[in-house]
Amino acid sequence: MDFIKNRRSIRKYKQQDIPVALLNQLLEEAFRASTMGNMQLYSVVVTRSSEMKAKLAPAHFNQPMVVNAPVVLTFCADFNRFSKWCECRQAIPGYDNPISFLNAATDALLVTQNFCTLAEANGLGICYLGTTIYNPDQIIETLQLPRLVMPIATITVGYPDEEPMQTDRLPLEGLLHEEVYKDYTSQDIDRIYAEKEGLPENKKFIEENGKETLAQVFTDVRYKKSDNEYMSEVLKRTLKAQGFDK
Amino acid sequence: MDFIKNRRSIRKYKQQDIPVALLNQLLEEAFRASTMGNMQLYSVVVTRSSEMKAKLAPAHFNQPMVVNAPVVLTFCADFNRFSKWCECRQAIPGYDNPISFLNAATDALLVTQNFCTLAEANGLGICYLGTTIYNPDQIIETLQLPRLVMPIATITVGYPDEEPMQTDRLPLEGLLHEEVYKDYTSQDIDRIYAEKEGLPENKKFIEENGKETLAQVFTDVRYKKSDNEYMSEVLKRTLKAQGFDK
Repeated sequence: MDFIKNRRSIRKYKQQDIPVALLNQLLEEAFRASTMGNMQLYSVVVTRSSEMKAKLAPAHFNQPMVVNAPVVLTFCADFNRFSKWCECRQAIPGYDNPISFLNAATDALLVTQNFCTLAEANGLGICYLGTTIYNPDQIIETLQLPRLVMPIATITVGYPDEEPMQTDRLPLEGLLHEEVYKDYTSQDIDRIYAEKEGLPENKKFIEENGKETLAQVFTDVRYKKSDNEYMSEVLKRTLKAQGFDK
Repeated sequence: MDFIKNRRSIRKYKQQDIPVALLNQLLEEAFRASTMGNMQLYSVVVTRSSEMKAKLAPAHFNQPMVVNAPVVLTFCADFNRFSKWCECRQAIPGYDNPISFLNAATDALLVTQNFCTLAEANGLGICYLGTTIYNPDQIIETLQLPRLVMPIATITVGYPDEEPMQTDRLPLEGLLHEEVYKDYTSQDIDRIYAEKEGLPENKKFIEENGKETLAQVFTDVRYKKSDNEYMSEVLKRTLKAQGFDK
């Protein structure tokens, strides 16, 4: 399983299609992931057509992977199918609420990661697009997602056409807690972030952005409070519109 | 990668410890999963002591795996560490909002599934406990989780002491959509759920619960609207208490 340890996200792909049989096999195997009460609260929308990729791209801030990857997968939290089944079987579904959204989102994300592992094990490269939950309303419109369906993750997939450097990770001690959560002192923070802050590429990143610290690049440029608050409102509104919150 | 295709959840474990070095190695490899902006918005609390397992058990409705597994892992959405880093670096964090919760929960769930795959590849068995988000307040108290940390997934881990049957899954056609979401007709529902409804164990399940249809076992017994609405209130209250929603 060394490929998991050595993995990296791939943003450039060869002009080579992924056979339908292979993609379906990987998805079918991915669906063996744990799922709440075996309800399988997810759906996957497969985008192969150039026209649909072009329509999806703006929701993903026009990141070039969306139009250049042979396949774009949108994993959705889906209580629609299950609720329809209930309605067809003299059962009254009660899944139009926030906990049901989180249950379905969980199911969808476990399957997403399982798919990524299987794709990489088969020589494919993937990139995870976090933008899915920033512009869910646009994706819903483009993919025609009905009530009780929310897009939760987008993966671009293809045969790798680059070999990027592996990105850094925090040391294990910074992420694990034994028995109870031990909150971080400023000394802990210094130690945990030392390696990250010492990397030449991160020092360059600070300079390019005209900031004093790497953390400021995140708070002032990449993931700003005002953006987060705006996107939180879109998220809340979209969850209401999709029937997950009254 | 056939072990993914053939996997099943394991609820009975041998009385055999998992070496610390092995567990740490698997977690470290799991942390190679995609993460938003390489922020690694998660923490893992490792429970090995009998005392702490006993304290966690009620939050998981006393499912016996919690006290019987050698290791219980609670994966948390964590914006605390990142925010503390910002505060130590003259940066003002803006992650006390719902989108930041969902970003961190996503990071945590990708890592959770990656860990499960690696554990199974190494001969361990796992069970995913969906109860984590039903009683987050109890878990927060037990594990002493600070502001901007939410428990999102619990995994029991150990060497398998059972060989359960593999559970069913819906046919692929019921889960995939080409280019746009094609909503389900009642004929689609009949076809997609036919195999599940035909299984002897599911017919027995209906009888044992005194119901007419399998769907009614879900709506009236296992995942009731009133329970979902109650748990949605707990979820909302807990997200506010943890600082993710004003």
